[in-house]
Amino acid sequence: MPTDLIPALLREYGDVTRVALCDYLRPRAPHRHLYNLVADYPRRGGRMLRPSLCIATARAFGAKLEDAVRSAVALELLHNAFLVHDDVEDDSDVRRGRPTLHTLHGVPLAVNVGDALALLGLRALIDNQATLGPRLAVHVLQEAERMARESIEGQAVELGWRRDNALSLSDADYLEMVLKKTCWYTTIYPSRVGALIGTRSDRDLDKFIRFGFFLGAAFQLQDDLLNLQGDRARYGKELDGDIWEGKRTLMLISLLRDATPAERERLAGFLARERRERQPAEVGWVRERMEAYGCLDYARQVAHGLAGAAAHEGELLYSALPDSRDKRFIRELPTWVLARN
Amino acid sequence: MPTDLIPALLREYGDVTRVALCDYLRPRAPHRHLYNLVADYPRRGGRMLRPSLCIATARAFGAKLEDAVRSAVALELLHNAFLVHDDVEDDSDVRRGRPTLHTLHGVPLAVNVGDALALLGLRALIDNQATLGPRLAVHVLQEAERMARESIEGQAVELGWRRDNALSLSDADYLEMVLKKTCWYTTIYPSRVGALIGTRSDRDLDKFIRFGFFLGAAFQLQDDLLNLQGDRARYGKELDGDIWEGKRTLMLISLLRDATPAERERLAGFLARERRERQPAEVGWVRERMEAYGCLDYARQVAHGLAGAAAHEGELLYSALPDSRDKRFIRELPTWVLARN
Repeated sequence: MPTDLIPALLREYGDVTRVALCDYLRPRAPHRHLYNLVADYPRRGGRMLRPSLCIATARAFGAKLEDAVRSAVALELLHNAFLVHDDVEDDSDVRRGRPTLHTLHGVPLAVNVGDALALLGLRALIDNQATLGPRLAVHVLQEAERMARESIEGQAVELGWRRDNALSLSDADYLEMVLKKTCWYTTIYPSRVGALIGTRSDRDLDKFIRFGFFLGAAFQLQDDLLNLQGDRARYGKELDGDIWEGKRTLMLISLLRDATPAERERLAGFLARERRERQPAEVGWVRERMEAYGCLDYARQVAHGLAGAAAHEGELLYSALPDSRDKRFIRELPTWVLARN
Repeated sequence: MPTDLIPALLREYGDVTRVALCDYLRPRAPHRHLYNLVADYPRRGGRMLRPSLCIATARAFGAKLEDAVRSAVALELLHNAFLVHDDVEDDSDVRRGRPTLHTLHGVPLAVNVGDALALLGLRALIDNQATLGPRLAVHVLQEAERMARESIEGQAVELGWRRDNALSLSDADYLEMVLKKTCWYTTIYPSRVGALIGTRSDRDLDKFIRFGFFLGAAFQLQDDLLNLQGDRARYGKELDGDIWEGKRTLMLISLLRDATPAERERLAGFLARERRERQPAEVGWVRERMEAYGCLDYARQVAHGLAGAAAHEGELLYSALPDSRDKRFIRELPTWVLARN
């Protein structure tokens, strides 16, 4: 059973991160076409899972809070940079309950703002030098470079699927894309960098890839499920937005696999159209077919399996460490990931 | 008079950079939607001015060639990253004689490819550690962060002008935008990083801002002039592309200042339209008015003044150094910048 430790720690480390983030989001010129927009997404809130996981991991391994904060801030800035470009690339309408940046200000300014956010992330990583020294700071930078590379490669794979109108994807294709696009920056990188800062050693960092993959994939599946079944008022994106966008979720992939030839053809036609040409009735039909074929239940089962595997890996990684709130936070995450809505 | 030293050194340092660049552009997966496209712009050629200036400055200050090569490679990668996003943001059609990346592959993939190129630049900067050690490598990274920040701010200013359809800009507005958008990454950063690597000290780096500003602004003015008067076969972009794009060049700014109220109104209407709605006859009229009002001659005069100032600053910076090919290369640049076509 999840306790209230996770919300409490997300609030605590989230606040620490938000305060440190202010240093990087100060108003300055050019205001109207750059820095006001740079501060928009970070100020829209977010649950601060990634920076909190980074700080908690560092502390579970014995680091001081202040040694991990800049890395947490950098992660949050890089996350927002991804979101801005991702929204442009997917032509999404809504982010965290408000219109996306390019919808408000056009693609040219939004692309430039995404670049500025990524650069602020780099600056926070360079600032690590003051607390971590140049050698460890460069090491964290190397981790960030790997993380961003994986994300960009995952994004290329997913954009390629849409561009080619890919219709015959396997669960393994989906999971590999999620490993790259979501897990690296959501769970693997925060764990690895936390451990790097906590232990000042990169000996066993690869073990965190398994833990982060299982946890991050369960997280992404739950996110995709919430897109279909979430509470419209509380869910910050468009409901059914993934279907509107033709996103290859596990539910869509399994529907394409299970559908009759006639249904598959209708789906292929739907997916071949531009987003703006898709009709609400068609979106409703896709959703209804997903339910009829049990695609949501199937995805829920896979998510449960992944969360179980994450819990097991967490056990292996953390059981030898002394008890702490941070350690308990990390070990409760696999359960929490599926319970959130 | 320019000698053949500049083309010779551009070829030599360009080749060194191109060879080292191959390490970062190796084919790998995902090929079709990422790394094949990442290699496209860098393989289209380019005169390699920026990496050559970086290497020449480092050597003029006593560095070994191999100490500067990674920084030169990083600069070339970052330059190409800027070009990809810049082409998206300006909706340009042609780059280095071929269709722009987003024209060929769509905006989503192009934005992602720009991100990947910037990340490869970061990797090259991290790789500096092996030859320069972590402390100097972080220092070069700080310079790169400043350079990218200036470029992004300059880009925001220029995009803002177009978005607001700015009609009353001064020469000073133009020069400040060029300082940020062009000079930092074309001339200031290569000089500063070269000097940093050559001297292993950051004492007098700010002196390079003046030299780089005068040289880079003369370079940009000449570039804008070539866009209007260049040889179509040799010029890699669209001829008159700047007018099609409504780019606020010094020629357009001075035309807006000198035009009659009726002409100004017609210009305002032309500039208010979307690029795709502008007509060839209108573009021809803008161009003809620029010539009639002597806007090109005016820009040529300003460019000459800037190049003269760059030569003077170069004298102050480099006269005390021992004679070398590299030193002569740098001191010939102000003349060469205006002579190239």
